[in-house]
Amino acid sequence: MLLHTIDDVRKIRKEWKNLKVGLVPTMGALHAGHLSLIKKAKEICDKVIVSVFVNPIQFGPSEDFDKYPRTLDKDYELCNENGVDIVFAPSPKEMYGDGQRLSNDTLTYVCPPFFYVNKLCGKTRTGHFDGVCTVVLKLFNIAQPDYAFFGQKDAQQAVIIRKMVKDLNVPVEIIQCPIVREESGLALSSRNKYLSEEGKKDALVLSKILKNIKACFEKGIDDITALKETAYSYLTDKHDLEYLEILDKDTLHEQEKADKNSIALIACRVENVRLIDNIYLGE
Amino acid sequence: MLLHTIDDVRKIRKEWKNLKVGLVPTMGALHAGHLSLIKKAKEICDKVIVSVFVNPIQFGPSEDFDKYPRTLDKDYELCNENGVDIVFAPSPKEMYGDGQRLSNDTLTYVCPPFFYVNKLCGKTRTGHFDGVCTVVLKLFNIAQPDYAFFGQKDAQQAVIIRKMVKDLNVPVEIIQCPIVREESGLALSSRNKYLSEEGKKDALVLSKILKNIKACFEKGIDDITALKETAYSYLTDKHDLEYLEILDKDTLHEQEKADKNSIALIACRVENVRLIDNIYLGE
Repeated sequence: MLLHTIDDVRKIRKEWKNLKVGLVPTMGALHAGHLSLIKKAKEICDKVIVSVFVNPIQFGPSEDFDKYPRTLDKDYELCNENGVDIVFAPSPKEMYGDGQRLSNDTLTYVCPPFFYVNKLCGKTRTGHFDGVCTVVLKLFNIAQPDYAFFGQKDAQQAVIIRKMVKDLNVPVEIIQCPIVREESGLALSSRNKYLSEEGKKDALVLSKILKNIKACFEKGIDDITALKETAYSYLTDKHDLEYLEILDKDTLHEQEKADKNSIALIACRVENVRLIDNIYLGE
Repeated sequence: MLLHTIDDVRKIRKEWKNLKVGLVPTMGALHAGHLSLIKKAKEICDKVIVSVFVNPIQFGPSEDFDKYPRTLDKDYELCNENGVDIVFAPSPKEMYGDGQRLSNDTLTYVCPPFFYVNKLCGKTRTGHFDGVCTVVLKLFNIAQPDYAFFGQKDAQQAVIIRKMVKDLNVPVEIIQCPIVREESGLALSSRNKYLSEEGKKDALVLSKILKNIKACFEKGIDDITALKETAYSYLTDKHDLEYLEILDKDTLHEQEKADKNSIALIACRVENVRLIDNIYLGE
């Protein structure tokens, strides 16, 4: 069932009072990564809602909001094939009202803590995680899920959302699902559509760097600078590295040495497409 | 029933799945103003939860957090006498965890829009409404009420909370109740306890100013400057006026002329106790 209004979702949600409801929040352009979240939701829940909403307030002014792929017909078909009960695809107006410029002058925001956003993607994408937390809390309040499903691919997002749920006592259990990769190793992303065939090859460097860091860690190297330095032999002039960090996987705090609780995270532009990837060193 | 932990509240809330639940959030030191909220909640709801929590993150560093009256035994007794089902009185540690300094470095905050907080109490109480919205959303998520009850006395707070509920799609209906006054006209407030007998008399000026503004409006004066100027004859050196404003009652936006949708709001220190009051001009 394809729904566009908040009221319609609420109406059906009320009928599901005694059922376990799962929410998979997405920006659409669904790929096998999203489908793995939907599959997991179907396992745990009686009813599954997928939201498809390209959230304007999490894009910066110079980012790809207008260009971001929108494929609702195909997304809806995929959801139907995978047993999704509701696809909720609201308009920006339905979510934020109309008229005014969307900003914290006129809208209530959910703001994750500075120590969680002053690094990694938050460093260059100012306000991004405020926008993410705000829309995710809105979707939680609209769908009132028992479980919500997020991919490990957006590792910082997953940590920040778990922190929001804890700090604000949101009555939702967060289920995090592993990264889905192409056979080549490339992490699935809706933004991969922007890449040429050659760009896709150059993009393999992200997963290769992470895999190699993990191999080095498993061989006993725990010095973080040394682990990070192993990356440089992979990078060419096709790669514009934004960050490569090794941090505590639960808090994203810095560590003295890498350990089994570490995560390695990378962001790198290829053909001016911003790609991210990460790997747990201890699993 | 007196509960101190979030888990205990959640457990009982689950048993009330098919009942209408009301929440009256308070900072304790209950007076007849709070009791009017409880009475209204009893009318509308099957079960009533009163939270008693002096919320540290809504007090500024130079404000009266430590001094704020705490009278839990008496509050609990009053709640029992008035048919309250749960009194939820958590510790700051239960609400915010322990250890760290409470700030947006380490905690997720709910931040109401700048255009709603850059005036009235928000102007001098920096961060106050961030703290209010954050704790109120936490309490909503813990108690999951169908209805929540707020007094008109904290008019800016009520407007900001309704805005939060709308912006974040919080599934709660806000019920606002009129100001309760002593026979003298003094609006009830937990902070009145700080006043001497003489201070209480000086404090009557707040309600007198507002009543007079309303009388002048009813006589046809709609010029806001003129209406505000009627206040000065009441003020003496016992009064430290912080603000006197006439604004739109729903949005707190400025108006060209006073009208039936206007609210007059005052904040004034008496014996260094900060008192607030307000009146709807159109009712």
